[in-house]
Amino acid sequence: MAAAQDSSEFCKAFPMNGGDGPNSYANNSAIQGKYVDFAKQLTVKEIAEKLDIEIFRSSNTFRMADLGCSVGPNTFSVVETILEAVQLKYQSTMMNSEFPEFQVFFNDHTANDFNMLFKALPRNRRYYAAGVPGSFHGRIFPNASIHFFHSSFTVHWLSRVPKDVADRNSPAWNKGRIEYSNSTNEVVRAYKAQHAEDMECFLNARALEMVCGGLMVLIIPGRPNGTRHLASATFQLLEACLMEMVRKGVIPEERVDSFNVPVYFTSAQELEAVVEQNGCFSIERMEHLPHMNVDDSVLTNFASHLRAVLEGLIKQHFGEEILDELFDLYSKKFEQQRFMIESGRTIQFFVALKRKEN
Amino acid sequence: MAAAQDSSEFCKAFPMNGGDGPNSYANNSAIQGKYVDFAKQLTVKEIAEKLDIEIFRSSNTFRMADLGCSVGPNTFSVVETILEAVQLKYQSTMMNSEFPEFQVFFNDHTANDFNMLFKALPRNRRYYAAGVPGSFHGRIFPNASIHFFHSSFTVHWLSRVPKDVADRNSPAWNKGRIEYSNSTNEVVRAYKAQHAEDMECFLNARALEMVCGGLMVLIIPGRPNGTRHLASATFQLLEACLMEMVRKGVIPEERVDSFNVPVYFTSAQELEAVVEQNGCFSIERMEHLPHMNVDDSVLTNFASHLRAVLEGLIKQHFGEEILDELFDLYSKKFEQQRFMIESGRTIQFFVALKRKEN
Repeated sequence: MAAAQDSSEFCKAFPMNGGDGPNSYANNSAIQGKYVDFAKQLTVKEIAEKLDIEIFRSSNTFRMADLGCSVGPNTFSVVETILEAVQLKYQSTMMNSEFPEFQVFFNDHTANDFNMLFKALPRNRRYYAAGVPGSFHGRIFPNASIHFFHSSFTVHWLSRVPKDVADRNSPAWNKGRIEYSNSTNEVVRAYKAQHAEDMECFLNARALEMVCGGLMVLIIPGRPNGTRHLASATFQLLEACLMEMVRKGVIPEERVDSFNVPVYFTSAQELEAVVEQNGCFSIERMEHLPHMNVDDSVLTNFASHLRAVLEGLIKQHFGEEILDELFDLYSKKFEQQRFMIESGRTIQFFVALKRKEN
Repeated sequence: MAAAQDSSEFCKAFPMNGGDGPNSYANNSAIQGKYVDFAKQLTVKEIAEKLDIEIFRSSNTFRMADLGCSVGPNTFSVVETILEAVQLKYQSTMMNSEFPEFQVFFNDHTANDFNMLFKALPRNRRYYAAGVPGSFHGRIFPNASIHFFHSSFTVHWLSRVPKDVADRNSPAWNKGRIEYSNSTNEVVRAYKAQHAEDMECFLNARALEMVCGGLMVLIIPGRPNGTRHLASATFQLLEACLMEMVRKGVIPEERVDSFNVPVYFTSAQELEAVVEQNGCFSIERMEHLPHMNVDDSVLTNFASHLRAVLEGLIKQHFGEEILDELFDLYSKKFEQQRFMIESGRTIQFFVALKRKEN
């Protein structure tokens, strides 16, 4: 039999902050939520135009999964939108049929706060809910069992920091920097290769898990075609904070040298190449989401937002004791350089893929 | 569509103690484990003789669920045994076929510690795992989606204390007692009616969720046919401890009057009647498991064992502050009356049901 590998082997997991405290992801995911809200209109359109109702007619159960769902409200509202669109499509196609049932799988790393996710499930939901722990870079569902995958703000996370980048004897050693964009060509190449490898694993696993004709919608932070790897203002500022703490003697310099944020911003060209190479999916739509102006309230709490996302990663490398000082400093510096963040250098891709017939 | 009701509406949930501390269920479920181990042999036999491989041939995925799985090691070892037996049956029937995949759903109340359950999942498991939060007295899976259900030491828990039993104006008011067995006929009738209603909900839900030809194995603590409702020595001792704390002024008497353990010990006759009334299942096997002599180590920690099971229920009614004193007292009284517990007045039923063709 095909052994169901323990997908926790695949990668290091740094899930978003759990719970519902001031630094939790649940209370600090409004920026992602804005894009997800906009993407909903496109998702509804894709379902109306492209979803083949026949693919779940035999069991009369529509099974979908949100990959990297975290714990916050975004995942439930996306699910609701998708199910409404499927229902609408079904009603317009299959009059007088018994209505299908819905089963929704919420996936995230094993270390995600599933207890909180389960407690937050909408009470009057019209679907059967299940939690699926494990990395989506590996297999997490049986063959041909899922009709629709959704994943937002997830596949720009690498499964690991590229090995050479943290190796002081490698030409790709990323000394004094915490990300790849403003670094040497060797570092950029190592990040790019890791992302291509991860996307290949991701698409291979989904190709097996999806029913032929099934749809997958991804929202992926990236960069415009033909642009160089622009520095992420967010991470640049974090790097500046860490280096200031090195100068103050709070953090040893070598800790920063060996710290790297495992995030890569892809381009449409690179995405197309990886989908084509995989060969199992047709690209039904790929476009930029319009840039969102985030509310002042979000900008005011931008350090909390970043902390909800990165705390696990930073704590694991530097220890818990630096967290408050680091994010206080971030908050102060952010106020001085707010315009830089607001200019929004990354773009968000909306990608809809369809599983080809075998 | 059939609305997937929020099954948390169905009942009050008092899951087993989470975590892995000294009072956790994970570290205090050795007694249940002994019976489960014995029942495995019978389960393997049922699968070998009764499981129809054809029922999962079309999707080539065998889907099973453990209902009321809690967090401990018992659930994983039961799953392993079942999958091995299915594999063996498959190999003996379907030579040269592609081997099926396994998907296992772990179900318990939403308040169960799923985070711990997921972290404890065997690393080299050969199945896709999912957690399903919600009460098994309601629907938790889509129609005809499960091939095998397993549930041990769960259906003797009522979905709620029968309403009249805690109502001082009802003839079924259970003053001064914490369970039904040594109480008035009205109290016994109220418990029996609640259990029959719960079993009906349980079987109705499973009948819809199971594939025709699917099997269900239940391990149910009960009493021999024709016996009166014998007092549970375990609960009698707990009652004595609570009343002693009333006399000491630690607990107000009316708190004990309104406290009732929502557990009912059924008989083979009653079980048969409820299965027949439901009409969707054939009884393939129903027998007593032999009485297990528990290790001295378990008896030495019997108060911890009971605490792992009942802490949630007692805390909710009496408050956290009485827990240590209550279980210390229990431990002392237990030492004096050990023979009584060892005599084991409840019996354990092994029940195998098969979903009839519609």
